[in-house]
Amino acid sequence: MERKKEREQTTFALKGDLCFSEDKDRLQIWEDAYVVCEDGICRGVFSELPKRYQNIPCHEYPGRIIIPGLVDLHTHASQYAFCGLGMDLELLDWLNTHTFPEEAKYADLDYAKDAYRIFVDDLKKGATTRAVIFGTVHVEATLLLMELMEESGICAYVGKVNMDRNCPRDLCEESAARSVEDTRRWLNLCAERDFRNVRPILTPRFIPSCSDGLMEGLAKLQQEYGLPLQSHLSENTGEIQLVRELCPNARFYGEAYEQSGLFGENAPTIMAHCVFSSDAEIELMKQRGVFVAHCPQSNAALASGIAPVRRYMDLGLHVGLGTDVAAGFSLSMFRAIADAILCSKLRWSVEDRLLAPLRLEEAFYLATKGGGTFFGKIGSFENGYEFDAVVLDDCSLSCPRSLTVRERLERLIYRADDRNIEAKYVGGRKIA
Amino acid sequence: MERKKEREQTTFALKGDLCFSEDKDRLQIWEDAYVVCEDGICRGVFSELPKRYQNIPCHEYPGRIIIPGLVDLHTHASQYAFCGLGMDLELLDWLNTHTFPEEAKYADLDYAKDAYRIFVDDLKKGATTRAVIFGTVHVEATLLLMELMEESGICAYVGKVNMDRNCPRDLCEESAARSVEDTRRWLNLCAERDFRNVRPILTPRFIPSCSDGLMEGLAKLQQEYGLPLQSHLSENTGEIQLVRELCPNARFYGEAYEQSGLFGENAPTIMAHCVFSSDAEIELMKQRGVFVAHCPQSNAALASGIAPVRRYMDLGLHVGLGTDVAAGFSLSMFRAIADAILCSKLRWSVEDRLLAPLRLEEAFYLATKGGGTFFGKIGSFENGYEFDAVVLDDCSLSCPRSLTVRERLERLIYRADDRNIEAKYVGGRKIA
Repeated sequence: MERKKEREQTTFALKGDLCFSEDKDRLQIWEDAYVVCEDGICRGVFSELPKRYQNIPCHEYPGRIIIPGLVDLHTHASQYAFCGLGMDLELLDWLNTHTFPEEAKYADLDYAKDAYRIFVDDLKKGATTRAVIFGTVHVEATLLLMELMEESGICAYVGKVNMDRNCPRDLCEESAARSVEDTRRWLNLCAERDFRNVRPILTPRFIPSCSDGLMEGLAKLQQEYGLPLQSHLSENTGEIQLVRELCPNARFYGEAYEQSGLFGENAPTIMAHCVFSSDAEIELMKQRGVFVAHCPQSNAALASGIAPVRRYMDLGLHVGLGTDVAAGFSLSMFRAIADAILCSKLRWSVEDRLLAPLRLEEAFYLATKGGGTFFGKIGSFENGYEFDAVVLDDCSLSCPRSLTVRERLERLIYRADDRNIEAKYVGGRKIA
Repeated sequence: MERKKEREQTTFALKGDLCFSEDKDRLQIWEDAYVVCEDGICRGVFSELPKRYQNIPCHEYPGRIIIPGLVDLHTHASQYAFCGLGMDLELLDWLNTHTFPEEAKYADLDYAKDAYRIFVDDLKKGATTRAVIFGTVHVEATLLLMELMEESGICAYVGKVNMDRNCPRDLCEESAARSVEDTRRWLNLCAERDFRNVRPILTPRFIPSCSDGLMEGLAKLQQEYGLPLQSHLSENTGEIQLVRELCPNARFYGEAYEQSGLFGENAPTIMAHCVFSSDAEIELMKQRGVFVAHCPQSNAALASGIAPVRRYMDLGLHVGLGTDVAAGFSLSMFRAIADAILCSKLRWSVEDRLLAPLRLEEAFYLATKGGGTFFGKIGSFENGYEFDAVVLDDCSLSCPRSLTVRERLERLIYRADDRNIEAKYVGGRKIA
């Protein structure tokens, strides 16, 4: 009975101006058309509603643009409290000065509750329908974050962070064994919670924070639980030098993950940043199917540099976009799309004329299907995709002349904020 | 009687958390303090209201941040209609493909009215209190823009554009003589209008669009009317090459203006961009007191590059910030400040480690006192400055811990939009 009701609620059509990516070069635009959701799964787009769907509810959004939900492939819920603050340092100093002291506060569940509530509320206001999120080392606070995310209706992978070295005493896990043990406890508590929207993801912070013993323990956990993994890679020159010193046997940063079996060999893996990945590192990412989470705003704000995203796309790597708060200062995935384009233009003009700037179609693809693929069939309105959609109202963006749907989408990407979001669906459920 | 009423209305105190620049390195912060406006002029800031002001009205803004109004030193009202559109070309192709066809439409006063209404309404919603604005070549449409700006209460220099070569027939002025004659007619009509907030500014588009004869004619007009001037300089490598071909006798782009006497010798002058200015050009800008309008968002969006703003500031040049719509895609001066910082970080990380990134204090200075100096004593709460102020409400930016006023200002710069603007004063008059 429950199931029947659920099926009814998640079977409907939306009508409006539809935009979605077929692939990175092809943006499909269907004006005043229907997209059908059946039992939470997209059944494609139609100019006229086919006979077999004529009895399902149709929600009309005349003059609105409807896009697949946006996928934030890398962000830190535990840093949102200082979003837009302390933006004056490079990565390692920034971690020590601003980030680690903030994350230590999440030992206090009351603080965590206040802070995560703000993060989840703001994430819900935006166009993000799926996110891959760092918590902190704390089991209880991370569970709390997962519960809040679960309620929000946004689908997410959330990670309890592992770190047993090179960080302040009040944040550092006592030992590799204790870190692994806490992670196991967290995973078992997650299993008890029976989450619907939220899943755990292994989250060794990055090589400088994780001893070899910890990485080995996490590799075992990964095999046991079959968990995906997120971490950071080749973000900053100082960080890369530190990894070189810590792991003299690794020829490149990514190999330090690979040596523990945590570079995508056994499970889907996201590496955030990849600003300075070497040819060998890129080749291994490709072999292992590693997802690159490109975070252009964060990479600018920490003066890291600009990742060669065009190269990754040309080589066929998996690439998505991340807001990476609080090195990034905005949860807006629209800004992530615009920033990816702008930074690629600056990279072209200032650093390397061989890599052409990203086009709108490509950056939009990254924020939808590109990152969405990490979740499965996510990020498109093609038949068989899970039904995530965002309805956009661009009436506030006045214009003295009429615009094409492609133009209206472009303008929204550069200029939209949460006021332009009229409705949001995840897996066929309306969450806003 | 009128005058007495006006004096009364423009004499008051505001109470709140005050932030303003003393110079580029020193940001003054006064918590829960008073700033006094007497007859439209700032009389300084006080922890306690001095006895002589105890009878003036005091508008209390508890917990609000009050800053000087922001100054947009370079923007194109006539391009706002395609703001956020067509962002796929470099400067010269972008002008020919998107900009010139749009500007040609302003021959139609009905179109101009619709388009300029939207521009002025949106400008008014933001934190901008002073702006230096390009119109089009059209006298009547430019007057219309000036009338709408006048009503808005924002103070502005507005320019009827001059261009008599290298542009489409429907936009190109018939001859140098006709362009000068129309400009004279426009100036006389401006004088008849008796504007209070709005003043005309000479606006030769840029060297590629202006014949030698036109520049000579404008130089004479400048001497006759004592007018300031705005134009573009060294924005893009293709543009610079074109100027080299058009002006073989000029050793550098700026010298082409100088040879007509239009490079700041006779009146205050703004040159937008200066991304690629040579040493000789920079030296001449310094000698002539030319203002650089730094437009980081536009320079990224057109893949021009990143101007060496730190160098200009170190050399003591006048520098302000511009939104430069519609190469820039946002009228927000908060974004201009943030973008100036971010782009300076990218320039440091990717191009030139000798120029340190801009600090918050410096970029805030550029958007207030730096650009404000073009208007006179504008952009600070020091005694003697014209009273422009913006009251900011940051309650929507929740935070689980308490923040200093400096932190709240930083966060607003990165994250504020027009919803955070509670009130706006220009020259002592409340306009929003």
